[in-house]
Amino acid sequence: MELRPHFKTHQSADVGNWFRDYGVTKIAVSSLDMAIYFANQGWDNITVAFPYNPLEWEKAAALSKKIKLNILVESQEALNHAKQQIKENLGYFIKLDVGYHRTGVNPRNIELIEQLQKECGKFQFEGILAHAGHSYNCRSKDQIIQIYSDVNQVLIQLKDELSEAPFISYGDTPTCSVVENFSALDEMRCGNFVYYDLTQVNIGSCNINQVAVAMACPVVAHHLSRDELVIYGGAIHFSKDSLKTGEHLRFGQVVHFEENGWELIPETYLTKISQEHGIIHGPPDVISKVKFGDTIGVIPVHSCLASDLSKDQRTLSGEKINKLSR
Amino acid sequence: MELRPHFKTHQSADVGNWFRDYGVTKIAVSSLDMAIYFANQGWDNITVAFPYNPLEWEKAAALSKKIKLNILVESQEALNHAKQQIKENLGYFIKLDVGYHRTGVNPRNIELIEQLQKECGKFQFEGILAHAGHSYNCRSKDQIIQIYSDVNQVLIQLKDELSEAPFISYGDTPTCSVVENFSALDEMRCGNFVYYDLTQVNIGSCNINQVAVAMACPVVAHHLSRDELVIYGGAIHFSKDSLKTGEHLRFGQVVHFEENGWELIPETYLTKISQEHGIIHGPPDVISKVKFGDTIGVIPVHSCLASDLSKDQRTLSGEKINKLSR
Repeated sequence: MELRPHFKTHQSADVGNWFRDYGVTKIAVSSLDMAIYFANQGWDNITVAFPYNPLEWEKAAALSKKIKLNILVESQEALNHAKQQIKENLGYFIKLDVGYHRTGVNPRNIELIEQLQKECGKFQFEGILAHAGHSYNCRSKDQIIQIYSDVNQVLIQLKDELSEAPFISYGDTPTCSVVENFSALDEMRCGNFVYYDLTQVNIGSCNINQVAVAMACPVVAHHLSRDELVIYGGAIHFSKDSLKTGEHLRFGQVVHFEENGWELIPETYLTKISQEHGIIHGPPDVISKVKFGDTIGVIPVHSCLASDLSKDQRTLSGEKINKLSR
Repeated sequence: MELRPHFKTHQSADVGNWFRDYGVTKIAVSSLDMAIYFANQGWDNITVAFPYNPLEWEKAAALSKKIKLNILVESQEALNHAKQQIKENLGYFIKLDVGYHRTGVNPRNIELIEQLQKECGKFQFEGILAHAGHSYNCRSKDQIIQIYSDVNQVLIQLKDELSEAPFISYGDTPTCSVVENFSALDEMRCGNFVYYDLTQVNIGSCNINQVAVAMACPVVAHHLSRDELVIYGGAIHFSKDSLKTGEHLRFGQVVHFEENGWELIPETYLTKISQEHGIIHGPPDVISKVKFGDTIGVIPVHSCLASDLSKDQRTLSGEKINKLSR
């Protein structure tokens, strides 16, 4: 099985190069703008893992002259539009809905799948592409493994029913993190695992010490009477993804930066955010020790969105990480 | 009473000019970067309505050489830091907590307020600044009026208790939209009213026909079996603010673009979003009429965040609206 990592999480030329060092040559992205950015960084085999957008056909046509570009289709209309507009040798995957019910063809709709497979015209049919986004509802490794096992059955049955067994591309971070046998698959796409985040900890994909990003936020006010700090870190930095644990809504978990990383501060969370403000709540002895002007770290709930919004990313040794600017 | 509109919602030089046409000369923003942007557009009296961030003192010092810049303080530490670092003639407001409990000095803490008022040194004490963010929990005009009435009492009492009655700056969109008598106030700051959004409709600040922004989103897939459309419009475009109406979570309301504006499509909502995908749900006859590649409009739940994230804004006649790029 090949790895085609999804670069939408980091959107970074530098982080992309770390993957190159491990022998990665093919990538997935979620927009044509990202594809263009990474093509300019020398990546020459890119799947845009988002339904083909007819309003951007010119970008796709221009890029497919330079690199091996794959798009996703899930209808005759989409494939016909692309074939009419784009003269170059484009690759395409058929998007399959394996239970998340966001996009994709129903795996029982063999007729449509075979039609889309056969009517490639001058294009290259690359295979079937699936994303088990419903694995994000899991709360343990066993649940993730169960979802993969169910999907695996669907994929095996589909291969049997189709006259030609297609290449299968599959990907989501929970599955790639905990499943060990991928015999039915030809390619794994996953993205978030490069950084992880509180959502993945909550799902059971990783533990909190495996999360590789924290947002550095200045403390601009103290409210000791309610065990709160105010930080410059709000929805424009984190987006508004949250996790609900019992009664508690959390937008991030607080860490203390140290020379070579960070240490978790127990029971201290980003509990409210507005456009620029973030409110940190924690035990009195923690909150009272933080000083006005200190920089604290916040592990985000959703690192893809936090990274997308961030304007200045650094490694722990302070080197700038270049990324696609919004 | 003066109007000092908050420009954090639009962050646009062009929209700022529309305010100038109405005689506005003073503005509020929520970051020093916005202040610098608007100063470059000729605005010379700007309040940064966010707690003074000591890590950005150099930006504040540089800008205060060029324009009348006001900061917010709510502690001795903040005021002392600013006084030590910034040699220019900076103005400052004391941030008051009038019930939202996000930031600000407790109005009963007369001692601290008077200290901050007196210890201006070379700075100019501008007055008291309050934001009744708890008005966002209202669901009717009467509730908004009640909050303002309660806060008004607090402000009148504070003026009585202080040896010198200060200038009072106040602002939030629900209050500025429905209250008619602002006798206790000297200045009104409000921002969101320029565009409004579903949140303000829900609060009771406005009606849906007064909302002035909609995101144009291409339709990239149809799922008629579940009355859904997939659009290119996700968390990177809308952020993740949502409204819960009964069982229903909504991220936006769908409109049909017409020559001179748009028309609401009944019962059709943005019901799920991920990084780039948006799922629209609506009645079968609506969903079946929309075509692959159509552009539909979505009124956002929170226009400040959607506008902050948007890369290309246009008037209804197609003119580009210049704004601060992220």
